[in-house]
Parts: sequence; C-alpha cells; structure tokens
Amino acid sequence: MPTVDDDRSDGSPIGLHRVVDPPGALPQAAARLDASPEMWPDEVRISVERLNLDAASFRQLATKHADDPEAVRAEVLAIIEARGKMQNPVTGSGGMLIGVVDEVGPHSPLGLTVGDRVATLVSLSLTPLQITDGLLRWDGRSEQVPAAGSAVLFARSIAAVLPDDLPDELSMAVLDVCGAPALTARVVQGYLDRGHAPAVAVIGGAGKSGSMSLAAARRAGARRTLGVVPVQHEADVLRETRLCDEIALADARNPVALAAAVEAALGTRADITVVCVDVPGCEHGSILSTADGGTVIFFSMATSFSAAALGAEGVAADVTMLVGNGYLPGHAQLALDLLRADDALRTLFERRLAAD
Amino acid sequence: MPTVDDDRSDGSPIGLHRVVDPPGALPQAAARLDASPEMWPDEVRISVERLNLDAASFRQLATKHADDPEAVRAEVLAIIEARGKMQNPVTGSGGMLIGVVDEVGPHSPLGLTVGDRVATLVSLSLTPLQITDGLLRWDGRSEQVPAAGSAVLFARSIAAVLPDDLPDELSMAVLDVCGAPALTARVVQGYLDRGHAPAVAVIGGAGKSGSMSLAAARRAGARRTLGVVPVQHEADVLRETRLCDEIALADARNPVALAAAVEAALGTRADITVVCVDVPGCEHGSILSTADGGTVIFFSMATSFSAAALGAEGVAADVTMLVGNGYLPGHAQLALDLLRADDALRTLFERRLAAD
Repeated sequence: MPTVDDDRSDGSPIGLHRVVDPPGALPQAAARLDASPEMWPDEVRISVERLNLDAASFRQLATKHADDPEAVRAEVLAIIEARGKMQNPVTGSGGMLIGVVDEVGPHSPLGLTVGDRVATLVSLSLTPLQITDGLLRWDGRSEQVPAAGSAVLFARSIAAVLPDDLPDELSMAVLDVCGAPALTARVVQGYLDRGHAPAVAVIGGAGKSGSMSLAAARRAGARRTLGVVPVQHEADVLRETRLCDEIALADARNPVALAAAVEAALGTRADITVVCVDVPGCEHGSILSTADGGTVIFFSMATSFSAAALGAEGVAADVTMLVGNGYLPGHAQLALDLLRADDALRTLFERRLAAD
Repeated sequence: MPTVDDDRSDGSPIGLHRVVDPPGALPQAAARLDASPEMWPDEVRISVERLNLDAASFRQLATKHADDPEAVRAEVLAIIEARGKMQNPVTGSGGMLIGVVDEVGPHSPLGLTVGDRVATLVSLSLTPLQITDGLLRWDGRSEQVPAAGSAVLFARSIAAVLPDDLPDELSMAVLDVCGAPALTARVVQGYLDRGHAPAVAVIGGAGKSGSMSLAAARRAGARRTLGVVPVQHEADVLRETRLCDEIALADARNPVALAAAVEAALGTRADITVVCVDVPGCEHGSILSTADGGTVIFFSMATSFSAAALGAEGVAADVTMLVGNGYLPGHAQLALDLLRADDALRTLFERRLAAD
C-alpha cells in the first residue's frame, strides 16, 4: 500500500504540486494531473466507491456515442487515464465521488480519519483520480458509476463525512446544494446584526437549493419568507411543506411580472432576493424585486454577469449583488441539519430524487 | 414646444409606459420605445447636444460598413428612427449623451433644473431619443456624435450635472467609471465599521476605473493599497501618481502569479480585491489573492459568473464576491471630487484621454 513519502515537504494547498501539464496552471485548468496514490504529507487518499458524473458531462458523452454504453464507458476510462482526473474535455465539468478515507497525511488539515465514508465537495475536474477496476461494474447508462481506485484531496479540498442516519443519495442531493442555505443564512444574519429582520424572497423556492434557502432564511431569523414558483403544481408542493410564509406564482424571466408578484405577496419589495432557478434571464426581475439597499444572491449558474451589472445600473437600483459561492465553512453540516430538522423538507427532497 | 400633458398620471419609474414593442418588456430589452417629446409628469426632457456611442457599437458599425462614414451615419439615424433609442441591434449596447435640460415634469424626483447641462448615466439603449438634425454635423468617423433632438429621462433614470470647472471630455471619462470608486469606498467603510482597516488590491490599478478605485480606497480609510499592473510602463505611470502604497507587476490571467505578486507586495493576501481589467480569465487569480473572509469586487464586464462561482468553490475560498453595480447614490459627485482633489489622478485621466 502506498504511503506518505517522508522526504517530501507539504504540497500546495490548492494542488499545484499535482499539475503535470501545463506547469503553473490550477488543477481545474490543467490538461493533466499526477494521480499517483503516493501522497504528500498534507494530502488525504480516498478509496473510491462511486463516481457521480456531472449531468451535462454524461449527457454530452451519451449523445456523442449515440447511447452506446460500452463506448461511453471506454471514453470515461480513457479520459481518466489521459488526464489523471475525470473532466469532460467538451463540457469542462466533472462531478463528485463517494469513497472511504484510506490514508491521512500527518499534515492534512481536513480533520478526516481513516475509515470515514466521505463525499468530495470539490469537483472531479480538479481531483487526482486513478481507476483500478476498468469500471467493469458500470453499465454506462447512468451518471452513477460504481468504481474502484484512488483519489487525492489537497489541504484546501472539501469533503463531507456521509452521515449514518441518511441514505447516501439523499445526503448527496443535500450536499450538492449546501452552499445556498449557508450563504442565505449568513446574509440574513448580517441584516439582524444591523438591527433589521429582513423579508426574504427565494425565486425557485420549490427546488432543492431554493427549499433549503427558505428553510435557512427562516431559521436564521428572517422576518418573512416568500417562495416564488413558476407553476401551480410547485406552489401546491411548497405550500404542503410550510417552509415559507408566502407563495407567489410568476415567470422569473418576466421582470415586471416577477417584481409585481413579489411586491403583492410581501406588501413590499424583498430585502434579500435569492435566485435559485437555472434558467437564463432572471437578473432584471430579481433586481426589480429587491428593495433599495437590499441584496440579491445569484445561485443560478445561468446568471449572466453583464446582465446583472447593467440591469442594476439601468434602473438605478442600489442593490448589493452577490455571486453565489458554493463554499462556506460549515455549509455541509448546516444543510444536513436543516434536512434532519424538517420532515417536510426531507419529503420534498425524497420526492425530487424519486422523480429524477 | 411640447409640454407635460396634465391629463396624464405619472409614468412607470423605470419607463415601462414608453415601451411600444413588445408590451411588458423593460425599456432596455424593448425593440421599440415611444420617443415623442411630449412628457409624462415624472419625466425630464433633454435637448441633445452630443451622443457618445458605445465603443463596441461604433466598432461594429464601422466594420460592417467598411469605414464608409456616410453609411455609418445613415445606419445610426435609421436605428434611432426605428427603435426610438440608440441601441445597436448587434452589440445590444448604446452609449450616453450630453444635453441641456429642456423641461422638468412637476413630479420628477431627479432634482434637475431647466438649463442644467447634464450627462445621462443610464445607457442610450434604454433612453427614448428623437433626432431632428439628421446628424448632419457628424462626420461618421468617431464615437462622438454632435446631434440635435430630444431625449427623455424617467423617474429612476440617472443624470449628472456637468461641472463648470472641468472639460466635458474629462467629466465624461470620470462619470463613465464612477460606480467603481463608490462601491470600493462602501466596501472599505463596511470593514471599518467592523473595526478592521482593510488592505486593498486593485487589479488594473493604472486604468480609469482602477486608479479611481485606488484613490477611493485610500480616502475611505484603507490600511494599505496596492495597484497591480501588467507591464512596467504602467507601473511607472502609477508610481508617479502616488495613488497607492505598493505596486506589483503581474499577468492577472495567471492565478498563481497574480496571487504570489499580491502576497509579496502586501505581505499577506488582500482583504478586498477590486478587479478592473477588461480581459477574461481574472476570476481565479483574484479569488486566490484574497484572504479568507475577504471580498472580491468584479468590475470587469469580461467576468464570467460561473468561473467566479466555481473558482471559489474549487479552492474552498470563503470570499464574498460582488457583481460591480454601476450605480450607487452619490457616485458621480464622489468620483468628480476625487479627481478634483488629486492632481496626479487628473493628469492620469488627461493622458488617457489624449492617448485614446
């Protein structure tokens, strides 16, 4: 079994020491990483159980190979072999993995213990990975890839210990969106620190990150919470959960309709608007829905930077606009705790998993 | 002379009442606005002196017409006639205008007076505009378009009175970037309110928005300021201005090099990193240059939302990332005051204008 090389000094906290090509690149931007299981003293090695390919990546591969599962499997293997990581060269995306901690370097700051079952919360697109079983247990037909091999975490990587009391799939779904409730809670707390309990609107409130954000906003002390959804069915689902005080129906891509719906439901614009819908064109509506001096948190990857910047300027909106950061200290624990504390939230997640 | 129609109630503060096609769109997204000089009671009408076309828009038109100035002029006229605003249908961008306030509706909240010479700080892409002189004084060869006609400001439009003590061109250059120093100053103040004088790094510190941000950071009470520039010539220019405590040379597109340069110059990562360089690929470097718990302000329109969001997550960076909003109350006055108070800053701007 490979172990830490005692002659080595610590690696780079962000993994620069594993970049083979081109030298000086960040691991995510690199063409090739050194994925050897031999460790630097501040690293952690994981024995891989399963890869979760990013949905966009799997779709691209399946389409390219006309849904021939053998060809998909062969290409995933070839990518990992060539790049030392699972990063789809077309989509640039990776995914995450589940495994068991195999060895912890003496200088690792991650607080992990050998035997911990963990999910990596940094992307596979920057995680050194070696596969040893040829992915033979994978049928090539889904994003869930049973696998054996080894992966490496750097000093600043992020991994969450999978809880015993929740099914893996449920934990993974929660961990996938755990940045949103954490940042929402922090922004709400900032308002409370200044003596003002905020009204919070979550656009896309019935989705995974949206429902989590609603639960987090309420628990953090929001004065009122509003979930905005596009269709009646989602409104019904959300109402059943009692996660928020108000529910409104609106197409988030229609700025005037969205702002009118928020204002009608809250009696005022929102102090904090959280954008959790993955469709383009929600920037102007979320800005118009937000009070002067308020905050918009963009969690949707479909957000256009320039549409947000120019949109606020175009309507003279004095709003603080945040790029949703997927990482905050303690974010995984906070999200898992929210789920455990609220049966309705858990039910909503379980239904979403069953429907996927 | 057209005047306010007394039978009308106020318009929409963001100009929805002027949208002809498609109904319900925001003025910026609209295909066509009603640009008639007849006013709603909360509007202001401006007698136009000059249009400043957006650089990207003018370039597109000049290229399309192989630099035939007559053809460029004819197309600008045709666009304004067809759309009721000057919005290049290919680039989507507009520009700004200078003119004299011609009439102020009784309910306008903008605080303008008939006879004020103003520059509009909202884009021409959403400003109702009629041209009455066929742009005959324009040679079609530059972005500066002498013009006669009328433009309309809504209740939430933004216009700055042009100061008597500065040349128009200089004022316009300052107003064009005035959001950056205002937001930088506000973020610095937020740190001071929490008892911590921040170290501020400005990437692209020798440019217009960058130099303004450095001046604003220092005046707001930053502990130390650092200007990062890509080439020695810019370092020399910036050193002469004495606008910042430290100067570093680095290619902002190289994350590792940028972070190393910032850390070497400040002895630590920055509390606040302001990104003012209009080249793609500066997200990761600016994140790595910022201390845990710090703030990155993205002012570059070349910023990629997803690169910022995923970049921070990929290196487990607990940083607050702000979309640079071009509007804050008082931003124009703050920027003009900064220029007046600092001869070196003024000289830098004048040189940039002469070089353009």
